[in-house]
Amino acid sequence: MSRYIYLGPAGTFSEAALAPLLKSGDSSEPAANVTAALESVRNGQSDYALVPIENSVEGVVARTLDELATGQPLMIIGEQVLQVSFALMVKAGGSKKEIKRLATHPHAEAQCREYIAKHLPHAEVVLTNSTAAGAESVSKGDADGAIAAEVAAKHYGLEVIEGNIGDREGAVTRFVVISKLGEIPALTGHDRTSLAIFIAADHSGALLEILTEFAVRGVNLTFIQSRPTGGELGQYHFIVDAEGHILEERVGDTLKALHRICAEVRFLGSYPRADKIAPTSTKGMTDRAFKSAEQWLSTIRSGKQD
Amino acid sequence: MSRYIYLGPAGTFSEAALAPLLKSGDSSEPAANVTAALESVRNGQSDYALVPIENSVEGVVARTLDELATGQPLMIIGEQVLQVSFALMVKAGGSKKEIKRLATHPHAEAQCREYIAKHLPHAEVVLTNSTAAGAESVSKGDADGAIAAEVAAKHYGLEVIEGNIGDREGAVTRFVVISKLGEIPALTGHDRTSLAIFIAADHSGALLEILTEFAVRGVNLTFIQSRPTGGELGQYHFIVDAEGHILEERVGDTLKALHRICAEVRFLGSYPRADKIAPTSTKGMTDRAFKSAEQWLSTIRSGKQD
Amino acid sequence: MSRYIYLGPAGTFSEAALAPLLKSGDSSEPAANVTAALESVRNGQSDYALVPIENSVEGVVARTLDELATGQPLMIIGEQVLQVSFALMVKAGGSKKEIKRLATHPHAEAQCREYIAKHLPHAEVVLTNSTAAGAESVSKGDADGAIAAEVAAKHYGLEVIEGNIGDREGAVTRFVVISKLGEIPALTGHDRTSLAIFIAADHSGALLEILTEFAVRGVNLTFIQSRPTGGELGQYHFIVDAEGHILEERVGDTLKALHRICAEVRFLGSYPRADKIAPTSTKGMTDRAFKSAEQWLSTIRSGKQD
Amino acid sequence: MSRYIYLGPAGTFSEAALAPLLKSGDSSEPAANVTAALESVRNGQSDYALVPIENSVEGVVARTLDELATGQPLMIIGEQVLQVSFALMVKAGGSKKEIKRLATHPHAEAQCREYIAKHLPHAEVVLTNSTAAGAESVSKGDADGAIAAEVAAKHYGLEVIEGNIGDREGAVTRFVVISKLGEIPALTGHDRTSLAIFIAADHSGALLEILTEFAVRGVNLTFIQSRPTGGELGQYHFIVDAEGHILEERVGDTLKALHRICAEVRFLGSYPRADKIAPTSTKGMTDRAFKSAEQWLSTIRSGKQD
Repeated sequence: MSRYIYLGPAGTFSEAALAPLLKSGDSSEPAANVTAALESVRNGQSDYALVPIENSVEGVVARTLDELATGQPLMIIGEQVLQVSFALMVKAGGSKKEIKRLATHPHAEAQCREYIAKHLPHAEVVLTNSTAAGAESVSKGDADGAIAAEVAAKHYGLEVIEGNIGDREGAVTRFVVISKLGEIPALTGHDRTSLAIFIAADHSGALLEILTEFAVRGVNLTFIQSRPTGGELGQYHFIVDAEGHILEERVGDTLKALHRICAEVRFLGSYPRADKIAPTSTKGMTDRAFKSAEQWLSTIRSGKQD
Repeated sequence: MSRYIYLGPAGTFSEAALAPLLKSGDSSEPAANVTAALESVRNGQSDYALVPIENSVEGVVARTLDELATGQPLMIIGEQVLQVSFALMVKAGGSKKEIKRLATHPHAEAQCREYIAKHLPHAEVVLTNSTAAGAESVSKGDADGAIAAEVAAKHYGLEVIEGNIGDREGAVTRFVVISKLGEIPALTGHDRTSLAIFIAADHSGALLEILTEFAVRGVNLTFIQSRPTGGELGQYHFIVDAEGHILEERVGDTLKALHRICAEVRFLGSYPRADKIAPTSTKGMTDRAFKSAEQWLSTIRSGKQD
Repeated sequence: MSRYIYLGPAGTFSEAALAPLLKSGDSSEPAANVTAALESVRNGQSDYALVPIENSVEGVVARTLDELATGQPLMIIGEQVLQVSFALMVKAGGSKKEIKRLATHPHAEAQCREYIAKHLPHAEVVLTNSTAAGAESVSKGDADGAIAAEVAAKHYGLEVIEGNIGDREGAVTRFVVISKLGEIPALTGHDRTSLAIFIAADHSGALLEILTEFAVRGVNLTFIQSRPTGGELGQYHFIVDAEGHILEERVGDTLKALHRICAEVRFLGSYPRADKIAPTSTKGMTDRAFKSAEQWLSTIRSGKQD
Repeated sequence: MSRYIYLGPAGTFSEAALAPLLKSGDSSEPAANVTAALESVRNGQSDYALVPIENSVEGVVARTLDELATGQPLMIIGEQVLQVSFALMVKAGGSKKEIKRLATHPHAEAQCREYIAKHLPHAEVVLTNSTAAGAESVSKGDADGAIAAEVAAKHYGLEVIEGNIGDREGAVTRFVVISKLGEIPALTGHDRTSLAIFIAADHSGALLEILTEFAVRGVNLTFIQSRPTGGELGQYHFIVDAEGHILEERVGDTLKALHRICAEVRFLGSYPRADKIAPTSTKGMTDRAFKSAEQWLSTIRSGKQD
């Protein structure tokens, strides 16, 4: 009986990404924005929040990254990847050529730009807070057409006149499920660990040092993004996704090393990968190798080797 | 007599950033979006475009990075850094408490979120395509207040009721000046070189290799950003700013190395830094050291050393 | 009441290096060669052996390195550094010009080569098993002059006709004190740790990996020497001296990493440096930093961070 | 009609290694020691010297390395690898049990130590300047047996009573052929490049930097040896053998980088490997890749890319 909150409004991709996670008895509600969704988890009104973190075309969702890295600490416990498909929708009986005001969210506009330029060259694009809000504004008569998730058409009684109009096939969005700090999801063998890594401001070469700590322990990165820290350009932190789980020795050992050499390391979660890809195990980097090394050192230090 | 185009509309920060560059006889006009501005340079209608590339609070401007990295090639020839200061403006005689609909651009909303939550908690935020469009919508009566650059108040006959309302002091935006490919700006000694680096998809550890090529030649990075390449998550390219000018040997030598080991390297420009910070010269990394090494090798290869 | 054995015969530099270590009640005796000295410790006839390991002019003493790296395991527990000074000696009443046969050890000959060429150009050099044996052969009439340690003149009743004749001033020999495996000498803050590191034969780049493990933990090397392993050229192991003591976290952690990635690592000892130089401590590499990182990781893994 | 000099005396392994190189009309003569052999090349009395540089059991020949690294510059133009096989020899009619004084060179003694301990436990070992000198001393009656190359038995009219008595099968010695500085041997595709690399004394981490320069250009090392520089312990230079030829771009480029970051780099020669092993070519490290990168950079710098 978990209470979920997602980036609303209803009828957007976040709701679609959440659907497969809901079990009987769970409740869900939309949030006005990413910050509101996470705040709801922080203050205990919701158990979990589902928010987008990265889109294959538009890039990262800066607010999600920043909330995780610099807001009151939370933890990623899962991820969902959703194929993003945009539909052009109008009021029942409407047509493409009647669209003078086209309502949609800036990200959807960005991903359908070529389609708009070719098929709706004279339409004025009206930006809305969500694709669902675009659909709603059509239903209210504030716009003549909307680009939104197909699910929004049902929500607002609209008619889809063309589906799958994104400029690039195969665009996907990755969503993360976020909870309060607490027990880390169990190791599955195909996990991802997310971190926010802060470096001392005046330390050139620091990024190379950080990547070396991962590399010497055979931990591959699947994602890296620098983000400006605070109000000045030139001071950065890094959001990093690494293969593996914090309970695995090579990952834990990497974290300890980063903790020593960085200004701050924030653990953002270890959780199963949606694509279920396991790390390629590297000789000498298994838990067994780490434990054997620990034992070997203990024996030598004790003066009891033979 | 150069023809400039900037990210419009008139009355936004881009226009303010462009102002100091204009010489007598130069013309300037706004563009609807970043793509339109760059397209105008590509097709020869404008000589130069000024567009934002990075904001200290909101992060990078994805469209600018993507156009430079994957659109028809252009070149950065300069940069401008502007202190970003937001003002709350209303119609003459209006007041803060009368603001029910607050119009502004999503980025401005993001940077004034705390102010809005505290001072305008009941206002509905209406997103517009630009901060200037927010001001315009107040002048037209579509909104009661706008958050925009102070310059927009004059443009649209509004009254500033509070200036400098951004949540973080010292937020700045970096703009770049873009031209067609051609002659590279002269070396000043305090230059920046921008690159887009594409790696082979299946090559883990590639980022470490790339950073090592910079490090062994004493070239510091001032910015790094991974961006998804094309329609799939998991394949990335990197936008990198490095200290120094392509005409300097250590930078040229780094570029050659990257060209050998990467799938593709796109040179995005060498241009003077706005902050005029010169790279800390490293022993053995001067042009003189490179030339001396070249000469030394030639002599040995010729079999004429003594 | 320790029983020492040293590289004999009596009257050589090894005996001089041992002298300051002897306490009342200790006994000492010479061994025929390095192997015999170490064998005496292995079979319990002696408690400690003192043998040379490195000379500033002639380089390493291969047999000492090989015995430590590939013989039955022993442990270095201390080091002595001795200024090496050679003297030319003859029978009482003899003179330089009468020297037709000059007896000395190959290493001494190497270090006095320029002197011999200039002052004794016509002398036949007779190689002996030690410099003391050279002196002895003069006393027996088998040679007319010897190059040996001054102490040997007394031993064999000879007369020094010129002291300090080495080609290079300041030549020194480093000796190590070796015991059976057992308790490691206490940490002093100015310690050295010696290792033999074996790499998998077909692994190019392995040395770079090894050095990186030291570097990422701020552990400097003071000595590195590759040695062929077994009977084939091309397969090497490395003898390495590192700053610090195995009981220090950064050293222990480096050893664990090497244990994971190398074919074999043999710990050869942690012991006080003769020069008492302490490692320059590096931020993030102190024992405290290691322990704090361990604690931090434990807290996160337990799910109890806040 | 070349004049060769080799490490004498006649009847040693050096002479055997030289034999296959001699063409009709060439002359050869023995030198008293490595220094004398190289001096003969330096002063023009000989065209080429053949001297040992490395033995698989005993390690490097320090004098050869030091002469090449710090003596008046010469150049390696070829190498020979010889299987080293020791024979026990006596006067005609002699037998093993009659050997009371066994004459041999220290290196041969080291490589037959186990044999001697087992089969000649009571023999006194008399060190000679060469294995041939050991054989000679048997012929003169100064010793009862010698360990030497089989070829020495013929030279001195002795009888081999047991062949191949080295403790390890497959021991080999690598010899180098040395000439004055001049034209470098032609590229064969299976070449080796030897270097002496001097680092600034106070620069910890320098060895890692040096190895990184090789690694980033895909140049593998086949040999590395630190040697003390001058009279003090703690200051080292490195003798390095790398795969490839100085005329290959990746090798030349590595040399230039070393020249920039090291106190001194001395080129010791590029020459065909005796084992004819070609480097595994690495993508991006071919001459073609280097030239293409050069061209690409030139085009960009000229401002004429399109």
